[in-house]
Amino acid sequence: MKTVTFGEIMLRLSPEGHRRFVQAQRFDAVYGGGEANAAFLLAQLGADSVFVSKLPRHELGQAAVDHLRSVGVDTSHIIRGGDRIGIYFLEQGAGLRPSEVIYDRAGSAFALSAAEEYDWRRIFAGADLFHISGITPALGGELERASLEAVRTAKEMGLTVSCDVNYRAKLWDSERAGRAMSGLLRYADICIIGRGQERELFGITPKPQSDSDYEAYRPAAEELVKRFGLRLAAITLRTTVSSDRNRFAALVYDGHEHHITKEYDTETVDRIGGGDSFAAGLIYALGEGMDTAAAAEFAAAASALKLTVSGDSAYASVGEISSLAFGSGSSRVQR
Amino acid sequence: MKTVTFGEIMLRLSPEGHRRFVQAQRFDAVYGGGEANAAFLLAQLGADSVFVSKLPRHELGQAAVDHLRSVGVDTSHIIRGGDRIGIYFLEQGAGLRPSEVIYDRAGSAFALSAAEEYDWRRIFAGADLFHISGITPALGGELERASLEAVRTAKEMGLTVSCDVNYRAKLWDSERAGRAMSGLLRYADICIIGRGQERELFGITPKPQSDSDYEAYRPAAEELVKRFGLRLAAITLRTTVSSDRNRFAALVYDGHEHHITKEYDTETVDRIGGGDSFAAGLIYALGEGMDTAAAAEFAAAASALKLTVSGDSAYASVGEISSLAFGSGSSRVQR
Amino acid sequence: MKTVTFGEIMLRLSPEGHRRFVQAQRFDAVYGGGEANAAFLLAQLGADSVFVSKLPRHELGQAAVDHLRSVGVDTSHIIRGGDRIGIYFLEQGAGLRPSEVIYDRAGSAFALSAAEEYDWRRIFAGADLFHISGITPALGGELERASLEAVRTAKEMGLTVSCDVNYRAKLWDSERAGRAMSGLLRYADICIIGRGQERELFGITPKPQSDSDYEAYRPAAEELVKRFGLRLAAITLRTTVSSDRNRFAALVYDGHEHHITKEYDTETVDRIGGGDSFAAGLIYALGEGMDTAAAAEFAAAASALKLTVSGDSAYASVGEISSLAFGSGSSRVQR
Amino acid sequence: MKTVTFGEIMLRLSPEGHRRFVQAQRFDAVYGGGEANAAFLLAQLGADSVFVSKLPRHELGQAAVDHLRSVGVDTSHIIRGGDRIGIYFLEQGAGLRPSEVIYDRAGSAFALSAAEEYDWRRIFAGADLFHISGITPALGGELERASLEAVRTAKEMGLTVSCDVNYRAKLWDSERAGRAMSGLLRYADICIIGRGQERELFGITPKPQSDSDYEAYRPAAEELVKRFGLRLAAITLRTTVSSDRNRFAALVYDGHEHHITKEYDTETVDRIGGGDSFAAGLIYALGEGMDTAAAAEFAAAASALKLTVSGDSAYASVGEISSLAFGSGSSRVQR
Amino acid sequence: MKTVTFGEIMLRLSPEGHRRFVQAQRFDAVYGGGEANAAFLLAQLGADSVFVSKLPRHELGQAAVDHLRSVGVDTSHIIRGGDRIGIYFLEQGAGLRPSEVIYDRAGSAFALSAAEEYDWRRIFAGADLFHISGITPALGGELERASLEAVRTAKEMGLTVSCDVNYRAKLWDSERAGRAMSGLLRYADICIIGRGQERELFGITPKPQSDSDYEAYRPAAEELVKRFGLRLAAITLRTTVSSDRNRFAALVYDGHEHHITKEYDTETVDRIGGGDSFAAGLIYALGEGMDTAAAAEFAAAASALKLTVSGDSAYASVGEISSLAFGSGSSRVQR
Amino acid sequence: MKTVTFGEIMLRLSPEGHRRFVQAQRFDAVYGGGEANAAFLLAQLGADSVFVSKLPRHELGQAAVDHLRSVGVDTSHIIRGGDRIGIYFLEQGAGLRPSEVIYDRAGSAFALSAAEEYDWRRIFAGADLFHISGITPALGGELERASLEAVRTAKEMGLTVSCDVNYRAKLWDSERAGRAMSGLLRYADICIIGRGQERELFGITPKPQSDSDYEAYRPAAEELVKRFGLRLAAITLRTTVSSDRNRFAALVYDGHEHHITKEYDTETVDRIGGGDSFAAGLIYALGEGMDTAAAAEFAAAASALKLTVSGDSAYASVGEISSLAFGSGSSRVQR
Repeated sequence: MKTVTFGEIMLRLSPEGHRRFVQAQRFDAVYGGGEANAAFLLAQLGADSVFVSKLPRHELGQAAVDHLRSVGVDTSHIIRGGDRIGIYFLEQGAGLRPSEVIYDRAGSAFALSAAEEYDWRRIFAGADLFHISGITPALGGELERASLEAVRTAKEMGLTVSCDVNYRAKLWDSERAGRAMSGLLRYADICIIGRGQERELFGITPKPQSDSDYEAYRPAAEELVKRFGLRLAAITLRTTVSSDRNRFAALVYDGHEHHITKEYDTETVDRIGGGDSFAAGLIYALGEGMDTAAAAEFAAAASALKLTVSGDSAYASVGEISSLAFGSGSSRVQR
Repeated sequence: MKTVTFGEIMLRLSPEGHRRFVQAQRFDAVYGGGEANAAFLLAQLGADSVFVSKLPRHELGQAAVDHLRSVGVDTSHIIRGGDRIGIYFLEQGAGLRPSEVIYDRAGSAFALSAAEEYDWRRIFAGADLFHISGITPALGGELERASLEAVRTAKEMGLTVSCDVNYRAKLWDSERAGRAMSGLLRYADICIIGRGQERELFGITPKPQSDSDYEAYRPAAEELVKRFGLRLAAITLRTTVSSDRNRFAALVYDGHEHHITKEYDTETVDRIGGGDSFAAGLIYALGEGMDTAAAAEFAAAASALKLTVSGDSAYASVGEISSLAFGSGSSRVQR
Repeated sequence: MKTVTFGEIMLRLSPEGHRRFVQAQRFDAVYGGGEANAAFLLAQLGADSVFVSKLPRHELGQAAVDHLRSVGVDTSHIIRGGDRIGIYFLEQGAGLRPSEVIYDRAGSAFALSAAEEYDWRRIFAGADLFHISGITPALGGELERASLEAVRTAKEMGLTVSCDVNYRAKLWDSERAGRAMSGLLRYADICIIGRGQERELFGITPKPQSDSDYEAYRPAAEELVKRFGLRLAAITLRTTVSSDRNRFAALVYDGHEHHITKEYDTETVDRIGGGDSFAAGLIYALGEGMDTAAAAEFAAAASALKLTVSGDSAYASVGEISSLAFGSGSSRVQR
Repeated sequence: MKTVTFGEIMLRLSPEGHRRFVQAQRFDAVYGGGEANAAFLLAQLGADSVFVSKLPRHELGQAAVDHLRSVGVDTSHIIRGGDRIGIYFLEQGAGLRPSEVIYDRAGSAFALSAAEEYDWRRIFAGADLFHISGITPALGGELERASLEAVRTAKEMGLTVSCDVNYRAKLWDSERAGRAMSGLLRYADICIIGRGQERELFGITPKPQSDSDYEAYRPAAEELVKRFGLRLAAITLRTTVSSDRNRFAALVYDGHEHHITKEYDTETVDRIGGGDSFAAGLIYALGEGMDTAAAAEFAAAASALKLTVSGDSAYASVGEISSLAFGSGSSRVQR
Repeated sequence: MKTVTFGEIMLRLSPEGHRRFVQAQRFDAVYGGGEANAAFLLAQLGADSVFVSKLPRHELGQAAVDHLRSVGVDTSHIIRGGDRIGIYFLEQGAGLRPSEVIYDRAGSAFALSAAEEYDWRRIFAGADLFHISGITPALGGELERASLEAVRTAKEMGLTVSCDVNYRAKLWDSERAGRAMSGLLRYADICIIGRGQERELFGITPKPQSDSDYEAYRPAAEELVKRFGLRLAAITLRTTVSSDRNRFAALVYDGHEHHITKEYDTETVDRIGGGDSFAAGLIYALGEGMDTAAAAEFAAAASALKLTVSGDSAYASVGEISSLAFGSGSSRVQR
Repeated sequence: MKTVTFGEIMLRLSPEGHRRFVQAQRFDAVYGGGEANAAFLLAQLGADSVFVSKLPRHELGQAAVDHLRSVGVDTSHIIRGGDRIGIYFLEQGAGLRPSEVIYDRAGSAFALSAAEEYDWRRIFAGADLFHISGITPALGGELERASLEAVRTAKEMGLTVSCDVNYRAKLWDSERAGRAMSGLLRYADICIIGRGQERELFGITPKPQSDSDYEAYRPAAEELVKRFGLRLAAITLRTTVSSDRNRFAALVYDGHEHHITKEYDTETVDRIGGGDSFAAGLIYALGEGMDTAAAAEFAAAASALKLTVSGDSAYASVGEISSLAFGSGSSRVQR
């Protein structure tokens, strides 16, 4: 399976340990971003994974490329040019203190890239699936247009189109986001959305009785499939118990049946990228021909496992994810 | 609001990570101490915060001054002289293993300072509130006398006097402490005390049925207000679930009504300084004119938030504390 | 009390922080191994603790010796020679992600050592107890024979013989292990075994209703005592709640009565070496003349405390363990 | 003496150790910038040092403020607002490999600040000296105009005006720089310039026979004094032996006599900020009433000492600098 | 240009900082080995660089693959299997204390690999050059035979064959090495050898008057070309001034003329891999059509630059190397 | 050979990297002190090395004991008691910036120990040599008396007495030191003194023409031997080129002939403990029966090697030192 993802990869800087921004004399540096994270995991799972973006020629741009290449992501379609790589600063939360993000991505090479720079026909040659998230059109400039051209071309060329709504309130408001994402989803086969965003963006209002009332999201999934003509809608169901502990499950609806996955409850090393790993897991599992229920479980396990890995990028194998999704899931030392 | 605090700021040295003392090749270094921590947070909350102490002229004394100045504490009343800065070694506990403190503060510049070195009339000029804790008189030498002169002068000059009992069994015994603190509290408007210390120092014996029986402390608060003629008594109600997890609440009594705060239950990064942040939060909130209930909630939130910040010193803003005290308190990533 | 243990001490390398193997630019290095860990704690508890092994002359072999000497282990019976020190790589798990071990111990100086190199009569002169675990015979070469000679000689010379079954599926299969361990246990006075291994190795099948049904292991302990003619059998009862949290208890049977210890439930810094500390604690406590119940509690507390200490080696004192076993066990800061 | 400096303070991020950009998993973070570095050292030397700039309200902006406050810089004239703090990435060179800088400062709060935001009359009230460097006008937007207004107002209000040419080829070209700096220098009393820049910007061409032919710069200093009507011109004479070793001297001309300082030859920890420390040292020394020769020596010593301190900011005392400038200058351990 | 290299890539572990082996609680981990280092730099210089080896499937084997892929090395011909990755421990020297290497590579997947596992015809399809060093045949087992088959096949298929003698006394003795390398060099076009090894292995005895008497190696280069029928012989001329400082030059003889390069004298961050970078630089430069003199200068600059980069692997660009080889070579900060 | 040394072992805390005290968020921790450092190296060289001191029972005292035990120092004569371990803070210098020491050792368990606590007859049983330095009597209290009793008893019991003058101006003045050391040296066989101290303490005034005029110290050595009735006097000849570079040589006079050692010139990792390693090397070499010249060379090499090892303690073997003293001394990588 050959997959293509399109988005921004940023330099992420986090104060070491549990330090707050103002205490930090050192920042841990990784490279990541929604679609890049999905491409990163897809490559590890064995997909022929292409990541499309734009990065400056300087060493920080190069370091982002090197990070992707290290797991085998095809970076030959990354345009090099522009002045800066997007940055985001992440203060890891602890207990009741939430993590905090300072975005410093305005004016990045990617944000300023022109829609014409991406030659989708050439990029999509031989590809099976195109994945995008709502972050890309949120970055402004010509990226909403580029995103639209991408999904339209992908559709025309017969690729499966996957779209993760990924709404970020710090990037755009819900009205603009709702409009833009509706435009994209019209071309999508698969839609992934975090619970709450169906309400904020599309006015779909589930009525859960509690954080664990996952059944309550069935009508929302049905509405998404219907409204956008999807093949499959997935609603991720995260509960942030604290900065150090998350619960995660997902509901997947394929137009015929609903599957609600196992619920994972885990100490969390790094919350970022959990949703991206869900997307990668789902894409991989469907591509491997798993049925909806199995694919949902594989995706949820990929997402839960990511929560225990530091950085934006998941490091995980098909075996590890499968063992979690379908095995006993013990945390005993393997020796 | 201009506040003055008086006490010792020490160099704190902790083995890195979860290492025990005998395993350590590296110590994390911060500067802190009960009253200094309160002054530190007060400055961040916007108070004109003066810290009074004595520190050697050498670079370690200077580093303590620099730490305080970094958030805007007024250090112009810190006397420079003497030979050594007090030190305390902190081994961070984990799970069922408690944190351990080795004090090495005897003979410090502050401990050996003379009562005459502190010109309280000059120091208190223009100030609204004086805060002290039971650690200062516990350090011996002339510091009990200096503390007494400070509260007496503050009272005479019309300042609000706040006193955190802060009993440390490694510094003095409960009998001496009880006698000394009774002397100070006679001049106090506000008394803060950790549960259990009302019994150890003052023979007041609440009868809680469990760790969570916060109501049982009402009579103790009433007795404190009555015995020392206070305006307000606050009893902090901490439960050390483990070294990595604490519960925190507080009961505040203003002579008229009791307020028991929300209970916080949080993974804990650094337990030290939680009480000092409660004090700073309470002082700030009352100074801002919050009513007893709101001030208690603000103080409890400041204390709970401190538990998630490494080091002695809280790094926290009015916004963060208010959001925790009065908002939804979600730990989701802010992005 | 003079104790002798026999086994391999390895260089253990773990990615720093929570990093996965493929993310690591730095490895934390400690030295440890089942029997070495027991010897290490025994020395700290005050025993005259002798560790017998073989290590190369080079600096990494020396570093292992230095580590043992630092707490007073007698290393004069460690043979120096051979080419390599055994290594194991440990990726610390997190939450639902299990820790993972990559053994790289084949061909080590110890694994290739000849049975004749160990002069047990000289080594055991003046000793009271010999402790071995199932890891040593599992390493192949002549080590099963050397182990057998050791226990036989110890028995002849009147030493108490302690044997920790310590089955490692990555080193040998359960059939070979069962046969070999049965041979060793015939000479043993004390047998320690982790629950589950009585079934895998010896076909003894307790029927617990749940993870907490500790009573269900009574018949298994009785059978072990009977089958091998033991003075005492201990079954350790660990529950891996997650990589960050363990529960621990133990059942000890002395031929007359059963004792099931307190259950500890603790955040876990480092899971490795918990069983070894149980063994050391049990040996020490019995040597000090504690009765079965007290010795079991002391051993369980030693094991639980180890879970909070990083590295293979426990750093703990008699006072700390006793306070946990027999005291209030509070995790409050000691200051 | 009250001094005012005006410029940008940035977050500086350097790969830890000697790592190259593409190898870095961690960046050391400090805050600095030409004029900020001068203000930082002036505060430590005892000046009443005011730093004027604009910084975003977020925590990274706050951290820059805290850094300045820690040594007592007056930050009350720093405007808070805008979105981003300027960043520069510094790869420390080694041996024959030069250090490399990637600027990421376009669009910073300071770069986008309006000339009207700075109320020079209010800022300069009570001040004795204003110091600026060529970096500020190089940042574009309204900063060249703001710089000009600043020097003009300073001159009108009777302040001494000091200007460090500080030409950065990555920020503007030599022609634009030459024109702008000529405009500023017309209002300056003191001009500091690194050798080579007199040629690049002002077409003044000394004819040194070698790196050590410091005498050859005499005519250049004279020409600068004459052309811009200066009271004093200082030419810094650095030789980059390697990334780990620098030689430093300076020539100062006060219209009457020339002084060429001692030559320092030192292993170099951090090359950045050496020129800024020269400026601060010169300003301080002249303010203290030292004669030209003594002031030049003090300034050169301050600069040389900076080379041994990591980060942008000098940490140095009057005593240390004087001992180097006027004492024996031994590097023996002080004990 | 498509290049193929064949050898072992190991996990290298070095005590952090300047610590000695017995002091280390942490090891820095990188992946490297003679031929792998050459492949690594070739990929960065723009070659289509294939590295052939064998690595275990586990995560440490994977990490080595990831390291190579990060700069674009083609790892598709690395065989996966076997149990262990070779390890070498490196204690970085300082001043007069030499660096020390403990090899732990016996029994590695590569060392135990069979000659038949490498299908040279398939591997060399489309390739222009094959590079090997004397370390590969030194590892024993079937690797001498595999090396011989490789060079023979390469020669038959018309590839240029490059051979770096790279004698390691800890791996084999000079007699065996001399015999084996003579066998390989018969098929080589290019031979690279460190001075001294021409004497130890081949009995060629230059008579230098001093460390800097580079001319004295002319006859040796001529003899090498003649004896082995080479197109080009390069003798690297390193002087280890101290562990922190090296001088480097090279003499290259192409059968017609000699070129002795510039001499570099530089503080040294990491001595390992300097020779491998020389090889990669030479291969690249010749492939680009540079003449002998220019190629020698490019190679010497690549080698000198490597000395300033930590780890086994050079991180360097064509631009950086050219600037050093052909430009002014200043170490001034680039800003 | 059994050696006894008597002195204080302290916790040494140094800012990580090249940070200054006021920049440090982390301190590297080692344990050391003049006589302890000598005992540490003696144990590694194979001596039966006893260290006598007093340390508190707490974990920091224990860590000092563990450090000594790790290399086999006999710590059974260290008295445990008192409250604090002496501390010294070390800021590592760089280039022209000298290292700086802040002593915080007043009131330590050792400084307050009584002369009666040391039972010299029992301690010296079976010993061959007693070594002390001038730091011990400098610490005040009863330590000058204890030192005198030690040397007197040692002399009476037939031990060789070695005394390193080790004058520290921060501990006592030259007059007091001269008087006290003269008292001790009367009982000494061997005296070691750093150049300059013969003048400061004993009024002996060599007239060197330069730093390298080692011959000029001959008369001083002769005078020392004569004045104190020594068997051997050694003058260490250090030149602090910079904080990063030292030159070292020594002159040894045995009453018959002078030997001036090779001069070492080396990059310096850690200057502290160089003199102590000289003492240990000299004691070891003489004990091994080396003649004066060989012993001097061995001692000088031990001292020079120490300069390249971080921490107070030398890690060095007889082989390494001999290779430096008597071998080729190359710094090439050993592989």
